[in-house]
Amino acid sequence: MSCALDATHDPALTSWVESANAPDADFPIQNLPLGRFRRPGDSAWRLATAIGGQVLDLQAAGFVGHADMSLLLQQPAERQALRAALSAALAAGSPERTRLAPCLHAQSEVELGLPCDTRDYTDFYVGIHHATAVGKLFRPDNPLLPNYRWVPIGYHGRASTLIASGEPVYRPQGQVMAPGAARPELRATQRLDIELELGVIVGQPNLRGQAVRLGEAEAHIAGLTLLNDWSARDIQPWEYQPLGPFLSKNFATTLSPWIVTLEALAPFRRALQRPAEDPPSLDYLDSDANRQRGAFDITLEAWIDTPAMRAAGAPMHCLARSNFANAAYWTIAQLVTHHTVNGCALAAGDVLGTGTLSGPQPDQAGSLLELTQGGQQPITLPSGETRTFLQDGDRITLRAHASAPGARRIGFGACVGTVVERC
Amino acid sequence: MSCALDATHDPALTSWVESANAPDADFPIQNLPLGRFRRPGDSAWRLATAIGGQVLDLQAAGFVGHADMSLLLQQPAERQALRAALSAALAAGSPERTRLAPCLHAQSEVELGLPCDTRDYTDFYVGIHHATAVGKLFRPDNPLLPNYRWVPIGYHGRASTLIASGEPVYRPQGQVMAPGAARPELRATQRLDIELELGVIVGQPNLRGQAVRLGEAEAHIAGLTLLNDWSARDIQPWEYQPLGPFLSKNFATTLSPWIVTLEALAPFRRALQRPAEDPPSLDYLDSDANRQRGAFDITLEAWIDTPAMRAAGAPMHCLARSNFANAAYWTIAQLVTHHTVNGCALAAGDVLGTGTLSGPQPDQAGSLLELTQGGQQPITLPSGETRTFLQDGDRITLRAHASAPGARRIGFGACVGTVVERC
Repeated sequence: MSCALDATHDPALTSWVESANAPDADFPIQNLPLGRFRRPGDSAWRLATAIGGQVLDLQAAGFVGHADMSLLLQQPAERQALRAALSAALAAGSPERTRLAPCLHAQSEVELGLPCDTRDYTDFYVGIHHATAVGKLFRPDNPLLPNYRWVPIGYHGRASTLIASGEPVYRPQGQVMAPGAARPELRATQRLDIELELGVIVGQPNLRGQAVRLGEAEAHIAGLTLLNDWSARDIQPWEYQPLGPFLSKNFATTLSPWIVTLEALAPFRRALQRPAEDPPSLDYLDSDANRQRGAFDITLEAWIDTPAMRAAGAPMHCLARSNFANAAYWTIAQLVTHHTVNGCALAAGDVLGTGTLSGPQPDQAGSLLELTQGGQQPITLPSGETRTFLQDGDRITLRAHASAPGARRIGFGACVGTVVERC
Repeated sequence: MSCALDATHDPALTSWVESANAPDADFPIQNLPLGRFRRPGDSAWRLATAIGGQVLDLQAAGFVGHADMSLLLQQPAERQALRAALSAALAAGSPERTRLAPCLHAQSEVELGLPCDTRDYTDFYVGIHHATAVGKLFRPDNPLLPNYRWVPIGYHGRASTLIASGEPVYRPQGQVMAPGAARPELRATQRLDIELELGVIVGQPNLRGQAVRLGEAEAHIAGLTLLNDWSARDIQPWEYQPLGPFLSKNFATTLSPWIVTLEALAPFRRALQRPAEDPPSLDYLDSDANRQRGAFDITLEAWIDTPAMRAAGAPMHCLARSNFANAAYWTIAQLVTHHTVNGCALAAGDVLGTGTLSGPQPDQAGSLLELTQGGQQPITLPSGETRTFLQDGDRITLRAHASAPGARRIGFGACVGTVVERC
């Protein structure tokens, strides 16, 4: 595994951008994520990093000579050199301050877009507690299918409906077969759900026919984002046999604006957690480094606010909190290696969703399907309202951060979507 | 349904490009498909139509001012005007002959690429005889799942491994769980198969959140290609539960070079064939026009030749011959409407595979899985060789044509792939 700690991770490092030094800032100088923004009236996106509450325009500041995120992602060495240069230039006391200050813009005054152009979006199913909980709803005695502990299960999603944080989520209609009904009907989903996931952003591509070995897999990953895999739970069971989810998922998938790089995540590596009785992975999916350092300690949260809560000025309510390191059965390196073992080509900007990252406890579940026991047990919100699934106007905010002793906390920003009645 | 017959369909029309007038020509003047080519040494693709054994460079000839197939596909009116202009200019006696002759190139002397850039590739499952035959292998008493006659079943495929006719197909490796084995193993597939399909090429896009009504669906389709959905039948059963096929399919999908437009296919419309006892489609998938004229009479063929056959100068052997009109349970208009009913966005150049188009008879099966009864009954080739699944060096050629009384026969060209040992 790559990404040894270096001076850019020094927890004592501060920035001349004061907002980056707040203890709970998502974007201290140790983070330096990659994203795209545009100012009001502009049509083109520009490459940026986030520092405190600001974005730094990487082109205006002379750090990159183009606006193509794919180009930046696909060169690990260039990406790492950029991190070192940004860390030096944004550090407190840097002589670059005067030159760079005009290239900063308040995040609240710009539009943050999708962080990259994505051709292919894959969604995996690495959350073993999620897979078990969902499996129990259908097969109480045999929740996990026999392939789960051997195969990193995944399928292809829809690239055209990957949307930026803040874009509306239109409530989809679809075929629903009600229990006991003689025939399905077309209707707006009544079981609109979230899935709390991370998105793995591919960096260095591989050619068709070339498998990526586990030892090289992380060199093909640029970093991570948050990902909300919006799901229609009443459309899904009727359509998904035998080829998998389709219209129940492909109406919208929200990505957060910032790619938190693997370099930034280096202090938060953990051992892969597997029950001792589980089978060892096949050789192509196994290495000492993957077992010892392949996981990441990232706290994940899903928050809700309703129109009534917003009208009352009430804060968001946390639906669930989990951790990537104990939710995921497979590492991100294993996902890349499995995905390419047959020669499948990955490209810079491709997104690999992890699947829902639920923890083992009930309040750690990353979907309403789990949190409400399949819609049987409504959640009561602090406003007194209840929810099984989402209602129009409900807003979901995913957040994540990584913290560890001796390291500066870093965050992922927000992944936001509001449910809108079908237009 | 659009596309009434006009002068461009006149079966008596001939071209000054003599090879287009041969009775069995795939590309008579009544066809005028859209594709892309480049000459040896060129890096950029150029837009073209096929006429007889030639390609006509649409840019050099002044018919289009750009090299962007998506731009051409997304404007139905522009595409139809181009057809009319090409028909007049290529007709016998046209005064344009002298001007256009230098813009022609022999198809054998140019490279034909993918006809368009595709962001999202969806594969449907409309072949009811295929679904029944494959279902019988797993569930003899209940081959068709309950949703089949209600839902046009589909799933997302991999856009990055859509490949042009002629590109090699590398034998994939993957996890296989042998019958009775205690654990899976990683190995090269021993059950490499084909799927004989058509590809529906999207023209006019729709925005996210906007469903395309059935009456407008064909306006969103530019035309059809051949499509070979290469499949690894030993990887598929182990990986596909519960999210559908993934690595067993996404290593390669071959498209033929020419988009045969809906305009060219107008003389070959047929009524949708459904058993009288089948349920009527839900309202959003039903219309008089769709039932009466939504299907197309297109003959489909899969051919094989082996290295030994080629060394002996033997001709290709026809594995199967079927017809789109009696293989498909759903029309291409229904696919577009179902795909977008939840607001999913389709873009120009997107590909919707039909799924395997097997006819009701055993020799009409579009996959080796069916032709060999799941690998139990080997096929004997004219060379004396036998096959259950494909061996290295085997070459598969898909072909298709449409013919009808009073209409000129038109063809699709070839969709070719040769199996290559994993590199």
